[in-house]
Amino acid sequence: MTRPLCPQMPSDIEIAVAQIPKLVTEIAEEIGILPDEVESYGKYKAKIELNILDRLKDRSDGKYIVVAGITPTPLGEGKSTTTIGLAQALGAHLQKKAIACVRQPSQGPTFGIKGGAAGGGYSQVIPMTEFNLHLTGDIHAITAANNLLAAAIDARMFHEATQSDKALFSRLCPPKKGVRSFSKSMLARLHKLGIEKTNPTDLTDEEAARFARLDIDPSTLTWHRVLDTNDRCLRQITVGQAPTEKGLERKTAFDIAVASECMAVLALSKDLADMRARLGRMVIASNKAGEPITAEDIGCAGAMAVLMKDAIKPNIMQTLEGTPVFVHAGPFANIAHGNSSIIADRIALKLAGIKEGDDESQNGYVVTEAGFGADIGMEKFCNIKTRVSGLKPNAVVLVATIRALKMHGGGPAVTAGKPLDPVYVEENLELLEKGCGNLGKHIENAKKFGLKVVVAINKFSNDTPAEMALVQEYALNVGADYAVPADHWARGGAGAVNLANAVIEACSTPSNFNFLYDLNQPLSKKMEIIAKEMYGADGISLSPEAQAEVDRYEKQGYGDLPICMAKTALSLSDDPNKKGVPTGFTLPIRNVRLSAGASFVYPLVGDMSTMPGLTTRPGFYDIDLNSETGEIEGLF
Amino acid sequence: MTRPLCPQMPSDIEIAVAQIPKLVTEIAEEIGILPDEVESYGKYKAKIELNILDRLKDRSDGKYIVVAGITPTPLGEGKSTTTIGLAQALGAHLQKKAIACVRQPSQGPTFGIKGGAAGGGYSQVIPMTEFNLHLTGDIHAITAANNLLAAAIDARMFHEATQSDKALFSRLCPPKKGVRSFSKSMLARLHKLGIEKTNPTDLTDEEAARFARLDIDPSTLTWHRVLDTNDRCLRQITVGQAPTEKGLERKTAFDIAVASECMAVLALSKDLADMRARLGRMVIASNKAGEPITAEDIGCAGAMAVLMKDAIKPNIMQTLEGTPVFVHAGPFANIAHGNSSIIADRIALKLAGIKEGDDESQNGYVVTEAGFGADIGMEKFCNIKTRVSGLKPNAVVLVATIRALKMHGGGPAVTAGKPLDPVYVEENLELLEKGCGNLGKHIENAKKFGLKVVVAINKFSNDTPAEMALVQEYALNVGADYAVPADHWARGGAGAVNLANAVIEACSTPSNFNFLYDLNQPLSKKMEIIAKEMYGADGISLSPEAQAEVDRYEKQGYGDLPICMAKTALSLSDDPNKKGVPTGFTLPIRNVRLSAGASFVYPLVGDMSTMPGLTTRPGFYDIDLNSETGEIEGLF
Repeated sequence: MTRPLCPQMPSDIEIAVAQIPKLVTEIAEEIGILPDEVESYGKYKAKIELNILDRLKDRSDGKYIVVAGITPTPLGEGKSTTTIGLAQALGAHLQKKAIACVRQPSQGPTFGIKGGAAGGGYSQVIPMTEFNLHLTGDIHAITAANNLLAAAIDARMFHEATQSDKALFSRLCPPKKGVRSFSKSMLARLHKLGIEKTNPTDLTDEEAARFARLDIDPSTLTWHRVLDTNDRCLRQITVGQAPTEKGLERKTAFDIAVASECMAVLALSKDLADMRARLGRMVIASNKAGEPITAEDIGCAGAMAVLMKDAIKPNIMQTLEGTPVFVHAGPFANIAHGNSSIIADRIALKLAGIKEGDDESQNGYVVTEAGFGADIGMEKFCNIKTRVSGLKPNAVVLVATIRALKMHGGGPAVTAGKPLDPVYVEENLELLEKGCGNLGKHIENAKKFGLKVVVAINKFSNDTPAEMALVQEYALNVGADYAVPADHWARGGAGAVNLANAVIEACSTPSNFNFLYDLNQPLSKKMEIIAKEMYGADGISLSPEAQAEVDRYEKQGYGDLPICMAKTALSLSDDPNKKGVPTGFTLPIRNVRLSAGASFVYPLVGDMSTMPGLTTRPGFYDIDLNSETGEIEGLF
Repeated sequence: MTRPLCPQMPSDIEIAVAQIPKLVTEIAEEIGILPDEVESYGKYKAKIELNILDRLKDRSDGKYIVVAGITPTPLGEGKSTTTIGLAQALGAHLQKKAIACVRQPSQGPTFGIKGGAAGGGYSQVIPMTEFNLHLTGDIHAITAANNLLAAAIDARMFHEATQSDKALFSRLCPPKKGVRSFSKSMLARLHKLGIEKTNPTDLTDEEAARFARLDIDPSTLTWHRVLDTNDRCLRQITVGQAPTEKGLERKTAFDIAVASECMAVLALSKDLADMRARLGRMVIASNKAGEPITAEDIGCAGAMAVLMKDAIKPNIMQTLEGTPVFVHAGPFANIAHGNSSIIADRIALKLAGIKEGDDESQNGYVVTEAGFGADIGMEKFCNIKTRVSGLKPNAVVLVATIRALKMHGGGPAVTAGKPLDPVYVEENLELLEKGCGNLGKHIENAKKFGLKVVVAINKFSNDTPAEMALVQEYALNVGADYAVPADHWARGGAGAVNLANAVIEACSTPSNFNFLYDLNQPLSKKMEIIAKEMYGADGISLSPEAQAEVDRYEKQGYGDLPICMAKTALSLSDDPNKKGVPTGFTLPIRNVRLSAGASFVYPLVGDMSTMPGLTTRPGFYDIDLNSETGEIEGLF
């Protein structure tokens, strides 16, 4: 998180390396994970075995808190820092069982302008180098799975284009020791085609041809390759230009790895079998008859699941104060749902929960973070993530900053890499008051889900007592259950004890959690509900393309999926320049896309870049190894 | 390794999963690695910290044995299996300290037609799933480093094309809190340009322009992107076609990850500082004046080293019989040198060695494998790998099979996936005798390096005693120091005890190891020596392009590098169809390429594919997770 200069504070990396982490095995033991349930990857990170859920199945769940934020400035308002600071306060200061659940950051942008993402100040995940680089290889596994499917699609199109039906069938089911056989995925495809035969020699020529020829319409192909690198020149490419490819070239693109549907699948899977099934359901194109073609049809969903079999196990690390942190999955918050994994939350909730007969006071807390502003991250947390998991959140912590509220009140633009305007570092109650409406709208939104709302006013060093008091009073007036200044960036968990106590109180009485819409409504109706209720739009308008896509998905049987809006986080509206609480606008939906494996439909509201670039002087210039000590220099 | 059907034997995967591995911490302890020097990645694989070399620096090295082979059939003749079987015999049966050092297999081909690579039968590395998939992420780290450089190159060309000298310089050295500064790599570039200034504001306009403008000649760009996926349609592509790239499109390619020069650098680095320096020296293009442009000039060699900081630590696993195996690096054997890492060998030799005052009988053995036939793998092991490491091998184990020798004697073609001709499964002494010359040539070659030669006749179930005896007698007659039938595939280490005893005896007297050529000879002279001495060619012929490339590299100061021939392994000559001992041919060199970071020049003798494809029914069709047990099915 980027902060104005604060001369007393050491830098994030100085703070992080000054702290000697506990062994991850110790962290795991403290939270009740058995030695056999943890798989160390070095000293400070480990994977948790999924069978822990069997052992703990009779426990109640701990309290479930989602951290969301107001509409942010481009610098971010400290949701991650607050998630970590709150967990530190609950665990290290109030002696509660407490686990933070966060997303794994994308590695590519670490070498661009972003720097590391591990909280900030005295509220961080450590070691931050391991958190930001490779971790335990989950994103690499996703990259491998995603690209295996991509290679398989193009290879299949090549083989179909260059072989007769008969040759194709014969090569798909070659004799092994004289016997032809179908693989599991081939049997699934036959079943889908209504051919209930299990012996390749029993198929008629017509059946063999239908089975063998996927007949993909290249113009409908949506599956991209991915890399965890900021590589702008891969945004649009032509492949298949080697002489071996016999002229079968086509345009396609690379996205950054975390934009892969495989990442969204990982985050939304309930268990290994669910992940395997979801990978198989992913739609990569339509055939020339307009029917969806899936990864199962391509035959490599099983192999993708094999590549991701360790990635599905959550990673455990720790905060600066030794509180456990689960780091797992990091899907995009626009074209995907921007939340960490269901599996990590489930395990954390069981570890935090209590056995029958235990005292309720021993119940613990799981603090999970939702990406972007609450209009996006919290909405998707509630309508997509918890709908799959069946877990009921108790409260939302809404992170607000004086800086962002001043911007919403009409303050000048806040831009990464440029000095802040003086209004952001001097007291300005008038501007601040004007901007509070944005916080009010997010409080109202959270209330629509029946959640307890705790506003965390994340303190920066220049914020004045009068400014903090103004926001606190405003929040309580417009319906927040609690509103608490928090100073965990400068003071660690100690700075978030009041916030933690408010969260404990908020969770002590039941919430009335509910979804914003029913799945059985038409796709466009669900989009409209989100646009009106969350964004304050008058309604939505679908482009002709978007309407056609909606019609196709409904016809193909995907009409009952939830909606995952791909919208800017920088405004409640579709226009990043409209701050505060925009009204009187219609949400324009240009295109609608399907993630059938992740199980949502995502309308595109504006341009969403899925491949970042590198500036003239990217971060990598300053990153190096100290050849004598082997330490990393310049990463943060 | 592919074998003819042997009804008594269980499959490789059945054998592998029937054995419960020891904990990797136990394996490490047994070989004398301290707990602090090992970093577990799960239960059965770990990384070894490089500082172990400081602790053991006063020890002598153990005995150093390289396993090479005769010219193979396309099915492979069991070098990996022999490496593992020999280590099992030395360690588990003869109670010697013994460590096998092998390459990490590429993951991509695992989903194509190759299947896993971990030895075979009762001589395997386990767990084979972890060996073949992800391992500890080294190849993923190489992919990330390779592709960061690729993205940085294209981004730099884009920024140079769209900015004035002044703007470019200003953006490369932007003011931070009012002060402009150079990064470490920028200072290295200035030094290279002869500009000994350290303050950006001191540069003249002309100096600033020279510094800022790399002026890459796009037609000389050799750096490819990589993926660890068999993706044929990336063999030739056009990038930069998005509107954001302003028309700066160009043709380029993806290779499979293990073909990256970063992999060769990893394998040849002596330590972390050496790896960092080699990454910086990698040449990615020439500028328009014909001068080499390096990764250091691009400014991201330090960041690449950071991405590879864990990859440089060798991985430890185990054989079926609990012998330690170091798995580290897997460079191509044609465009690179095809040997596992120097660092792994160095650590293994120190662990196998003895302290002053220890009894010589306690000295141990390190068995390392060289890829392809001995004309390639062993030659590069001796002339490239040991020249960098300074380590002196004691003996070579030359693996021969009756099957391959019959092929060299004129037997019909051996093709993967097709049934073997009866001559290969029935006794045929005449054909066998005719083919022994190939073995003879490899023995002669090994002798040219002054090495003790132990021929291992790797027994297949159909091989007859008369056939084994014929090869044994032949080998001893033409100068092998030892020739021993070995049956470790069927019997594990017990089947290689005689081989192990021969190796022990061979290592008990000194070898007279020497290089085949001096580095200070001209590049083409060094190529000629290899062609004549190793391949039996009459000489070499350079195409005009190759000659121009040789001239350029010598002018640029790369003339003293060793040669890394990119030649087929399927013949001693350049023509894979010429079996036995081809004579009367001139080796045609079509192009010559430079790996300045790995530090060799590689002449291209024929087409070398650096990106495999997928067949109509690739292996992935049969690979799946058992959703109930989570076990992998169909991988091998």
